Amino acid sequence: MSVRRCAILTIGFEILQGRIVDTNAAYIAKKLYALGHQVAVKISVGDRAEDIMNALRASIEVFDCDTILTTGGLGPTPDDITLECIARFFNLPLEVNEEALKDIEAKYRERGLELTPSRIKMAKLPRGAIPLLNPVGIAPGIWLETQYRGKDVTIISLPGVPKEMIAIFEKYVEPKLRIPSRQLIEASVAIRPCRESDIAEILKEFNKRYPQIYVKTHPYGHEVEAPSIQIYMSLYASNSREGLELCQEAKTFLLKRISSLHPNISIELLKDCSVAN
Amino acid sequence: MSVRRCAILTIGFEILQGRIVDTNAAYIAKKLYALGHQVAVKISVGDRAEDIMNALRASIEVFDCDTILTTGGLGPTPDDITLECIARFFNLPLEVNEEALKDIEAKYRERGLELTPSRIKMAKLPRGAIPLLNPVGIAPGIWLETQYRGKDVTIISLPGVPKEMIAIFEKYVEPKLRIPSRQLIEASVAIRPCRESDIAEILKEFNKRYPQIYVKTHPYGHEVEAPSIQIYMSLYASNSREGLELCQEAKTFLLKRISSLHPNISIELLKDCSVAN
Repeated sequence: MSVRRCAILTIGFEILQGRIVDTNAAYIAKKLYALGHQVAVKISVGDRAEDIMNALRASIEVFDCDTILTTGGLGPTPDDITLECIARFFNLPLEVNEEALKDIEAKYRERGLELTPSRIKMAKLPRGAIPLLNPVGIAPGIWLETQYRGKDVTIISLPGVPKEMIAIFEKYVEPKLRIPSRQLIEASVAIRPCRESDIAEILKEFNKRYPQIYVKTHPYGHEVEAPSIQIYMSLYASNSREGLELCQEAKTFLLKRISSLHPNISIELLKDCSVAN
Repeated sequence: MSVRRCAILTIGFEILQGRIVDTNAAYIAKKLYALGHQVAVKISVGDRAEDIMNALRASIEVFDCDTILTTGGLGPTPDDITLECIARFFNLPLEVNEEALKDIEAKYRERGLELTPSRIKMAKLPRGAIPLLNPVGIAPGIWLETQYRGKDVTIISLPGVPKEMIAIFEKYVEPKLRIPSRQLIEASVAIRPCRESDIAEILKEFNKRYPQIYVKTHPYGHEVEAPSIQIYMSLYASNSREGLELCQEAKTFLLKRISSLHPNISIELLKDCSVAN
């Protein structure tokens, strides 16, 4: 598995209406980051064909992503149109997948329920898609490797119900997307009293010295009255021991420079250098 | 104020890394929805100039938005580059705004602190931007009316720290964006046992009968074993009394059709037809 440039596409008007907080996108982002991939963009649109197809287009054409993970719009209701949009966008026929249909039929039959057109609809996948059978619900996800204007693109569609999305992600998607040679090493500290503007120059120096390390400050408290910041740093390493050593060295450098800012500065280690999982 | 087609653009690698859940986007989405505007898309990108400018481009060119609300990247550190990117994208000079500078200087001076280049940077706004002075922090937001390829575009930039974002939104943005002639009327009910696939046909009928009403089902529980759904419905009305009447009529129609599905169905009113605020 090579490093993918990913878009996370969450679908549903309830997201655009602020009726839910998009925890699905955060879950997938965290997983992809720990797995060694790059999330270039997250896009949320409503259950409207034009917007869904525009989001696919923006992911590929504007943000140059090669892998798109979608959530939502796989169910039986008329506004569940994600797979239909994917099929249209990539110019693939939408057809009943026998494996998916068998699984859906068995789940309903167990409870004495028949297939209806709305239920069969959940088995209609873009041609070439591999169904990811839902371990805790009905609607399967899909893994689709296809092309867009000569470029290879992977589409991974997951349900919008969080526990179903997580179950499918963990069972099928996570194992396939793992990159053993990219271990994520992270550390974070809290500094107080300290303002972002106090350490802006130190960070510039840090970035020059450790260009391979990502560092980001997050202010909390109040910039003037009770200023505190969290500093997060991370790097990927093929060898976790070497990565941890570099992380420690960089952390030591940074904290030394910060502690020399003024005598009564307090540094709290929130997470020492460690391998993310 | 006319109805805006909005993009919400949240900026920060921590969102793409799943280290935070994007509550800012949900807050703004909920507000814009209640204010009568249409959120067409939410986009999150990292603190990288190319991605930020691509997100502006996608918002306008792909999703045809006329109003873009951004959060994040207004602070004093080197990775705070939102205003610089907006200036570059719209081809405007970035220049010190005297009103913003005076406010920032006063806030630091109060604590005996001097202006530094990092602090002055927070007062550098795209030409034409109106500073939205920060009631609870330092970095001002901006309100910028400009043009992109002959099209009027409004950019509203807010800080990423949630309490600062909310304070500026409530003080300056909300009053300006209110549309008195668009009252949002909402209702929601929980139905159990009921599956999405049970009511797919009823919803098709509902959509035909009440095209002006938005309706959406949210499954919870388990589609086969313990199926429950929430149904959310909403509409905009210039007259809230008429809107509430239509909402009641549509709700009654929907619940009557659903209750005839089977005798032991239970309907719980989560929110009766009411005006959102």
